[in-house]
Amino acid sequence: MRGGGPLTLGEIAEALGLALEGDPDRKITGVAPLETAGPDQISFLTHPRYASLARTTRAGALLVPRDVKLPGPLLRADNPQLALAELLQLFYPAPIPPGGVHASAQVDPSAQVHPTATVGALAVIGNRTVVGARTWIFPLVYVGDRAEIGADCVIYPHVVICEGVKLGNRVIVHPGAVLGADGFGYVFNGTRHRKIPQVGGVLVEDEVEIGANVTVDRATLGQTVIRRGTKIDNLVQIGHNVEIGEDSIVVAQVGISGSSKVGKRVILAGQAGIIDHVTVADGAMVGAQSGVAADLAEAGPYLGTPARPAAEGRRIYAALPRLPALLRKVRALERRVRELEGRLGLTLPDTGDEGDD
Amino acid sequence: MRGGGPLTLGEIAEALGLALEGDPDRKITGVAPLETAGPDQISFLTHPRYASLARTTRAGALLVPRDVKLPGPLLRADNPQLALAELLQLFYPAPIPPGGVHASAQVDPSAQVHPTATVGALAVIGNRTVVGARTWIFPLVYVGDRAEIGADCVIYPHVVICEGVKLGNRVIVHPGAVLGADGFGYVFNGTRHRKIPQVGGVLVEDEVEIGANVTVDRATLGQTVIRRGTKIDNLVQIGHNVEIGEDSIVVAQVGISGSSKVGKRVILAGQAGIIDHVTVADGAMVGAQSGVAADLAEAGPYLGTPARPAAEGRRIYAALPRLPALLRKVRALERRVRELEGRLGLTLPDTGDEGDD
Amino acid sequence: MRGGGPLTLGEIAEALGLALEGDPDRKITGVAPLETAGPDQISFLTHPRYASLARTTRAGALLVPRDVKLPGPLLRADNPQLALAELLQLFYPAPIPPGGVHASAQVDPSAQVHPTATVGALAVIGNRTVVGARTWIFPLVYVGDRAEIGADCVIYPHVVICEGVKLGNRVIVHPGAVLGADGFGYVFNGTRHRKIPQVGGVLVEDEVEIGANVTVDRATLGQTVIRRGTKIDNLVQIGHNVEIGEDSIVVAQVGISGSSKVGKRVILAGQAGIIDHVTVADGAMVGAQSGVAADLAEAGPYLGTPARPAAEGRRIYAALPRLPALLRKVRALERRVRELEGRLGLTLPDTGDEGDD
Repeated sequence: MRGGGPLTLGEIAEALGLALEGDPDRKITGVAPLETAGPDQISFLTHPRYASLARTTRAGALLVPRDVKLPGPLLRADNPQLALAELLQLFYPAPIPPGGVHASAQVDPSAQVHPTATVGALAVIGNRTVVGARTWIFPLVYVGDRAEIGADCVIYPHVVICEGVKLGNRVIVHPGAVLGADGFGYVFNGTRHRKIPQVGGVLVEDEVEIGANVTVDRATLGQTVIRRGTKIDNLVQIGHNVEIGEDSIVVAQVGISGSSKVGKRVILAGQAGIIDHVTVADGAMVGAQSGVAADLAEAGPYLGTPARPAAEGRRIYAALPRLPALLRKVRALERRVRELEGRLGLTLPDTGDEGDD
Repeated sequence: MRGGGPLTLGEIAEALGLALEGDPDRKITGVAPLETAGPDQISFLTHPRYASLARTTRAGALLVPRDVKLPGPLLRADNPQLALAELLQLFYPAPIPPGGVHASAQVDPSAQVHPTATVGALAVIGNRTVVGARTWIFPLVYVGDRAEIGADCVIYPHVVICEGVKLGNRVIVHPGAVLGADGFGYVFNGTRHRKIPQVGGVLVEDEVEIGANVTVDRATLGQTVIRRGTKIDNLVQIGHNVEIGEDSIVVAQVGISGSSKVGKRVILAGQAGIIDHVTVADGAMVGAQSGVAADLAEAGPYLGTPARPAAEGRRIYAALPRLPALLRKVRALERRVRELEGRLGLTLPDTGDEGDD
Repeated sequence: MRGGGPLTLGEIAEALGLALEGDPDRKITGVAPLETAGPDQISFLTHPRYASLARTTRAGALLVPRDVKLPGPLLRADNPQLALAELLQLFYPAPIPPGGVHASAQVDPSAQVHPTATVGALAVIGNRTVVGARTWIFPLVYVGDRAEIGADCVIYPHVVICEGVKLGNRVIVHPGAVLGADGFGYVFNGTRHRKIPQVGGVLVEDEVEIGANVTVDRATLGQTVIRRGTKIDNLVQIGHNVEIGEDSIVVAQVGISGSSKVGKRVILAGQAGIIDHVTVADGAMVGAQSGVAADLAEAGPYLGTPARPAAEGRRIYAALPRLPALLRKVRALERRVRELEGRLGLTLPDTGDEGDD
């Protein structure tokens, strides 16, 4: 894709603040995985499982952890994953927004679009809406009335930001995400489900990233809140009046039901579900496909439906395959105990071998 | 957000038909939750769990159930949730569509758009498509050829209504929903998956509400049908030839596979899945993350994968954490029984303690 | 909907290469299900469960398997499902794209749109993007810079094809799908989640079909790949650097986590989840809602969370309802064994009846 190279190994080492073992004048044109990298590319070893690939790669240089023994030009990092993020940014800098409002965009005259912002083709910006400095609104985005988008945001194509939704600075919203649709609330009046008007808002703080086709509902009253630095993967559902704390990670297809409170630095793995009106403690980690059916009061890993401390959840998962054999064993034991009882002339009541299972 | 106030407590009591205990001339500017309401706002107590908040709230008045004891101005309702819905509507009336067809919309000359309908900026309305009275098509909506949309509908931005899809009156479709994409049908011809043309339609009856980024597939032949008053939350998948009865509730991220029939007043909780070609009885309630793998023949609650009557499902969930200990116990019992058999000189066959688990 | 008829039974038999039992001059106007077909329509029996409906249908003719005994005009096929696909195509031919670039579309001057391609109203085509022969881009589609779309593709409304994404020939992408949003990758720098730039691409090979509101993320480096002939249902999530082999079937709401490799002719049933960095063998079939937590090394059916060979998974599912009774039985057995031990004067240590469960 876009290229920021070529750079010499010396330039790379300096830019990333890393120790170089090898020729500082060697030219590098890009970054590639171990399997496909060529002599003019730099590759990386961020996980020991790929150590053998690192020994046979044709890459012109390698980004590696401090303690790894490998031939060839090496850049050593305390945190190779972090250095990789910086290396990728060096070679593939984020595109710069073109600036200006496209002639085909429909921007309400009352909207305040910062002169340094970009509004792409066929985007719609509503009444009294605010778009901050250097923010990039891609083509075909819809931003409703009285919405507020901060500075340095990137709003990708086909995003829908409904009326009154507020975004902080450096927020990224991927294509197709919908922020501020009505929460799901009805009351049964005896014959029909009557809609409860959803008149609250959505507040997305700084540095939040929201994945493609995510849905974040507006609150019934008050706000649905996503705090600073939280990252949300694709196709996640966030119900009305939910609050997610800072720096949490919400993996794809998770669902968080209405009014639940998710803490800081929480990890919700893929397809997990959180029931409504519960609290998930700071630092909790909920396993994939788990179902949180009650408050999780402490940090640490949880697993299963209903979600339990992970050690317990894993013991259950490990025990499950033995259940069919266990049923047979208990039936055999019952026969043997009856036999023993017969020998001793005992006449205890039967435990229901053929009966209630 | 939008405001319908201020109103006096007397005016509110009259509009909602409720008994007032307190000063009828007191001015109220809006509705707020117990925690944040101020003296010029009205709040509400719809669930006993919030009773202590109701005693300390600064709200200027409270909407409460008949039998609750609280100081201060009170509006008493038989069904406080229903009264809350009406109260919210009173203070935050739904916005009124601006009317007219925006100059940037692409409306096919053969389309019949009612003179009282609204078609927003950059919306696309297809050939011979019908849009009913007072219906509001938001910007960037796509409505395909020969589609029919009734009266008083609200179709939010980025909705896709494909060719020939029919919507009744008072239907709400939230942003990003897709009605009428092809059903998922193939036949393997020995070397490739051959597509089965999906030439049926989608019929959405009156007062249905469809959440953001929902997908409702068109039928292979015939119709995929969503009956009057059913409410569908975000990111739900409804397969081809599915039929959902009246007044059902389908919570976020549920999936209903092809040709299944879901009855009236059914509740499908979040992330539940329904296999294809099954029937879910009127009044069935399927728990979150449950998997319906066969017909549910009776009303009532179901739980688990495969979904079982909820009482049974809950017993299984409660028993699961005891399974690891049970394995140890049975092993201990086997040792004890062997010891007993040894004492009595019995030589029954072993039950396979170390063997088959 | 669109009609390709009327045709005589003789014409149909010839077009599909089928044996006809009945009047070759009988006129047929369309295809309908057994329940609703009238005397001028043809219906079909593709599954024995509908045999009784086939005996009472009013259809003017029936498409049936070789060996079925039924009165009335019959078309017999070795593979009636395949013949049905052909029959539907005969009567309801796919619409022909109108051709041309709509005046309201925003096509970058540097884009290469084939003269036979169609670009609908308000679509956006980026810089140096290529659109192949006869490909149909529907209204309101976004195609980013340097993307490549092959020949004979259909890209439905509101699809987002991000920068640099490559599609082969005869690819179908349903409304709202997002191809090439950033993969979900961060590294924690001690205080914040730092974004790992996602600078790879997405490659979708020939004859792939992608459902509505699906998300396919771009690779961190390299490519996310969907191989020839694979069919993907609605609301599926495909993470960065995933590779799916040829002719696989991915049912609605499945999630495939980053870097996992799914083989050829794999079937992933609805709502199944695949953890990151695993391999699913060619020909594996993963049951609905299952969770693949480790490599699946062999073809064949798998079931459950974690996914196990289906026979084992089914035994566990069948055993689960007996677990609550089993707990009671083991408690009873312990009492009986204690009693026996007492009789024989044995003093074995207790197995913890009241204790650890």
